[in-house]
Amino acid sequence: MAEVDVSFPLFHQQPREGWQTVTDERLFDHPHLSVDRVEALTPHRREQPVPWLVAKRKAAVAIAPVTASGEFVLIPQERIPVGQECLEFPAGQIDGPVADVTCDLVIETAMRELLEETGYALAPGGTLEPLGWFLPSQGFTDEHVYLFKAEPVCVVSRPSPDSSEHISPVRLVSSGELRRMIAAHEITTALTLALYARMAAKGSI
Amino acid sequence: MAEVDVSFPLFHQQPREGWQTVTDERLFDHPHLSVDRVEALTPHRREQPVPWLVAKRKAAVAIAPVTASGEFVLIPQERIPVGQECLEFPAGQIDGPVADVTCDLVIETAMRELLEETGYALAPGGTLEPLGWFLPSQGFTDEHVYLFKAEPVCVVSRPSPDSSEHISPVRLVSSGELRRMIAAHEITTALTLALYARMAAKGSI
Repeated sequence: MAEVDVSFPLFHQQPREGWQTVTDERLFDHPHLSVDRVEALTPHRREQPVPWLVAKRKAAVAIAPVTASGEFVLIPQERIPVGQECLEFPAGQIDGPVADVTCDLVIETAMRELLEETGYALAPGGTLEPLGWFLPSQGFTDEHVYLFKAEPVCVVSRPSPDSSEHISPVRLVSSGELRRMIAAHEITTALTLALYARMAAKGSI
Repeated sequence: MAEVDVSFPLFHQQPREGWQTVTDERLFDHPHLSVDRVEALTPHRREQPVPWLVAKRKAAVAIAPVTASGEFVLIPQERIPVGQECLEFPAGQIDGPVADVTCDLVIETAMRELLEETGYALAPGGTLEPLGWFLPSQGFTDEHVYLFKAEPVCVVSRPSPDSSEHISPVRLVSSGELRRMIAAHEITTALTLALYARMAAKGSI
């Protein structure tokens, strides 16, 4: 597997001038999802703290893997919360508290999820290009997802997803086919659309 | 305000062959966010129900408004869960249970959120183009967001957002500037990136 050494801005290290959490009460606690009632002061609301319900989640990564022949690697994954199989780029959560996340940990998670979910890995001499992060649902959760393009990738093993997941064999699609599927509303997951948006805006797809 | 009469597939009316919720226990209940422990059978897991924690949310809409001169209307909105101001397209939740959502209700909500958050409305003779839906975080929530492009829009009033929100004056950006901001990772919200991805894939931006 290729060695990767890149750095990029971390979500939790952004400047937060004018933002202050005044109270934070845990209403529901679970390893996969907690719910807090917070009260916060914001740059435009300095007098009276604003109450809000926040679903706390670990940070995550999502990777757009591209083969040497320019095909994208997608996985069909059964997703219980939405009751359907989604065709999406590989992704996964970053273990540990958000405050402890480092660039190395993000990259390590990205490489592991790529391998586990697809059986592909970054080829020697390949590039893991950071594409920033995105916010899945900023109105109710602190979840943020780091984005990468991995190119080229090659098959190194069979996929070995978590036992709680069901992932069908990968699908390799050309850039044109990916575009057609997005235009036809067949690709519906935010992480896949966010990766496509960043790559399209950069002119790299 | 323009009359709009379009129809489009609804999320909750998709075929669900092979999917069956066996148990659904509410662990946390709140008008803005509930958490259920579900057990489900899926097309690939027919024997043993799969347990999963699901954050239940109302459906939502997001709108890419375009002026007659081709500029996109974006709003800077303070978002408590992520502790920052996000530059995003107007969006909002659809009132009522997901099972009761109709095309008319989705459109009505889209037009209302556009007007309340930006002060813009679809111009007479304008088009509200359905761009499907997207799934913000299919691993933990059933939330789904209907997407539209509204063109052309014109100013009809001052914005009047909910008292719980803080939205700064709208920003009008060209297609090229929107693209630059996405490539530079300045636009981070899934709803804005998903709208951009659909429009870019269709070649309409």
